[in-house]
Amino acid sequence: MHQHVSLLTDYGLDDEFVGVVKSVIVDLAPHVNITDITHGIAPFDVRAGSLALARAVQYVPAGIVLAIVDPGVGSSRRAVAVEVAGGRGILLGPDNGLLAPAVAMAGGAERAFELSNTSLHLDAPGTTFAGRDIFAPVAAHLCNGVAVEEVGDEIDPALVMPAVVPLASDESHAAHGAGLRCEVTWVDRFGNCQLNVGRDETRHLGDVIKIVLPGGGSSDDVVRVARVTDHYGGIGEGSLGLVVDSYGMLSVCLDRASAAEMLGTGEGDAVLLFAGEMPVGTASVEIRPAR
Amino acid sequence: MHQHVSLLTDYGLDDEFVGVVKSVIVDLAPHVNITDITHGIAPFDVRAGSLALARAVQYVPAGIVLAIVDPGVGSSRRAVAVEVAGGRGILLGPDNGLLAPAVAMAGGAERAFELSNTSLHLDAPGTTFAGRDIFAPVAAHLCNGVAVEEVGDEIDPALVMPAVVPLASDESHAAHGAGLRCEVTWVDRFGNCQLNVGRDETRHLGDVIKIVLPGGGSSDDVVRVARVTDHYGGIGEGSLGLVVDSYGMLSVCLDRASAAEMLGTGEGDAVLLFAGEMPVGTASVEIRPAR
Amino acid sequence: MHQHVSLLTDYGLDDEFVGVVKSVIVDLAPHVNITDITHGIAPFDVRAGSLALARAVQYVPAGIVLAIVDPGVGSSRRAVAVEVAGGRGILLGPDNGLLAPAVAMAGGAERAFELSNTSLHLDAPGTTFAGRDIFAPVAAHLCNGVAVEEVGDEIDPALVMPAVVPLASDESHAAHGAGLRCEVTWVDRFGNCQLNVGRDETRHLGDVIKIVLPGGGSSDDVVRVARVTDHYGGIGEGSLGLVVDSYGMLSVCLDRASAAEMLGTGEGDAVLLFAGEMPVGTASVEIRPAR
Repeated sequence: MHQHVSLLTDYGLDDEFVGVVKSVIVDLAPHVNITDITHGIAPFDVRAGSLALARAVQYVPAGIVLAIVDPGVGSSRRAVAVEVAGGRGILLGPDNGLLAPAVAMAGGAERAFELSNTSLHLDAPGTTFAGRDIFAPVAAHLCNGVAVEEVGDEIDPALVMPAVVPLASDESHAAHGAGLRCEVTWVDRFGNCQLNVGRDETRHLGDVIKIVLPGGGSSDDVVRVARVTDHYGGIGEGSLGLVVDSYGMLSVCLDRASAAEMLGTGEGDAVLLFAGEMPVGTASVEIRPAR
Repeated sequence: MHQHVSLLTDYGLDDEFVGVVKSVIVDLAPHVNITDITHGIAPFDVRAGSLALARAVQYVPAGIVLAIVDPGVGSSRRAVAVEVAGGRGILLGPDNGLLAPAVAMAGGAERAFELSNTSLHLDAPGTTFAGRDIFAPVAAHLCNGVAVEEVGDEIDPALVMPAVVPLASDESHAAHGAGLRCEVTWVDRFGNCQLNVGRDETRHLGDVIKIVLPGGGSSDDVVRVARVTDHYGGIGEGSLGLVVDSYGMLSVCLDRASAAEMLGTGEGDAVLLFAGEMPVGTASVEIRPAR
Repeated sequence: MHQHVSLLTDYGLDDEFVGVVKSVIVDLAPHVNITDITHGIAPFDVRAGSLALARAVQYVPAGIVLAIVDPGVGSSRRAVAVEVAGGRGILLGPDNGLLAPAVAMAGGAERAFELSNTSLHLDAPGTTFAGRDIFAPVAAHLCNGVAVEEVGDEIDPALVMPAVVPLASDESHAAHGAGLRCEVTWVDRFGNCQLNVGRDETRHLGDVIKIVLPGGGSSDDVVRVARVTDHYGGIGEGSLGLVVDSYGMLSVCLDRASAAEMLGTGEGDAVLLFAGEMPVGTASVEIRPAR
């Protein structure tokens, strides 16, 4: 019997959607402990949901992970269960790429099933709330000891929809030289802009890196210089920093302010990185050695 | 002993109100499992709270349902407990109509009590936080086995304040013929606009329905045509749809976008429905049979 | 073994930060009950966090109180554990003043420790998420029976950073006479503006109080008159009231509307109070006796 359900959706908290999903689970499986990962994924943003889930999944307790960002709800898109880690974890969600990065992070899919056994679902007068009518009761039944084989037809785990996560690539630029083309994968509450590149892949660019935000034409490019540091206080007031974040990725940051707001950047935007140097006369800033 | 408290308020999550209410319950009754239905009801919006509670109540586990949207807190308005379903459920809240639709959905009030037994309340230096000082401790005591008769004086359940929920009515229109006058009861996070009418009452209007949003004068009316469908993907890109939602009600929707934003509609707005037909040349859209 | 963790942060709920902190705790200490106080503290706002924590702390169950508003995360600022109430409570957080008002409210610090025992922390590729990597696992270990002495080096509780909470002071004004200079300590979701003064300290000003919001020059002052009352309904429609709030403090309020919005006031703004009188011809309003 699983004891834990971890829950991620784009339902927000203003409506009762999340409360109803949790009520259905608790009603059917009162022993279960539910942990909300987040419900603040932007509506319909499968990619953002898949990345948040991948960041969180290594920390969630063994059990069920239920993720719902599901613009195709009620259509022919499949609802699936993906078993990982020798059965210690089962991810439930729509088969639209949402689960894929988390499944990869958890070691890959071992078995997968379509949630086609409707005897485990709730009857409902409409098809638009699969969280309540399909995913929540299936999660509860799994916690009550129903075997994953019973949720429906086994499917080829290789055919569960993959995610498209862009990799950083080499970039050559007439004015700035050789560098990397990266992408903002996540803007967090504090305005930090996580890039899809870690410290190791950027070490050849040095400790001071030129950041280029491509505009419409090259004359519209925004060019800034940032030091690499391991904490926000090491950035220096008013300066831009590249902080090695808690996932080991580089994040474009300000100290106690929003870099996203200052730069006007959002998720999915391109960010080019090149070797840089501090302008003469720049006040020195505290840099602690990377741990 | 009740095991579950379900909680709905207009407290929001930015302040510590909800956390304090839950702390008081957990401190007095550590065995209790609390499920948040929502705390995102707009401040003072008793009607929206009552409708959200009614939608959720059929799914909550047996136990206590505590609902607080209480602009009259501290005044002479009563705080009440309403017993439903043979004692399997007790709803607590202010006697201002908030509980009424949920009580009706749960089969009607069997007994009702005013929370007049102040020995079950917390002492407090002010009267403005009844959630913390009255409702939370009463909920906890009920969970600890205090009988509902002990919360205070029994009152006539027929005198608990009813809610005013508008019904759809017949509408006759010079240009559009015979139809229905409906109202938007709920705009959800995704911008879907739930109407106070189900599929059965609209079946005589056909599968293509003319939607009229009354303006100041008839020349200001907004007139649109929508297909009835059972999932968002069946609407067709850029078209408006009438989706049979998860409560069996018709909901004015767009696929992956906000109908409320596109139409400028909000809760309480009138929406008129008439028989319609698709303009010639409209691209056909996938319509799945209603289940 | 502690059973309860109460959690307050400025993480918000849009990202997965809170979910990951809770997942780490539940994974290490599955018996623990976690109650969210709030995660809606404005980013980096240590003062607002400290005041919310102080308001809540008297209601939380015995156990661990984990508070994180931590702009200096990853720098040399200390992470600390503060024992209160004969060991019934342990507050965890950054040593930046966040904990101080709550510690005082709980009777003062008895012992304090720096969280320097890294064997209780999680390994991580970066230093920016101490909630996940330091505070959550330490909270879980304390709940599992690890003694507070084991979290790290004992430090002098007198050297834990104090908070700066402004007191109301006497104010003398040419036009308005003798009064009090107060400050808005909290604007809640409903727009009520809590002042740093209780009813007893203002009783000499009478039941009708002149409120002055200082502008740039004295001619820019906003001057309003408000009755003291004990519930919002006692204010009277369109009038401003001074409500004795649930903490016994005076709060500038409107009935069913936002005083903060109407007056343009925010947290930290000065509010001067003087003896006042109702203008002739003002409609009388219901005033219930203060309890």
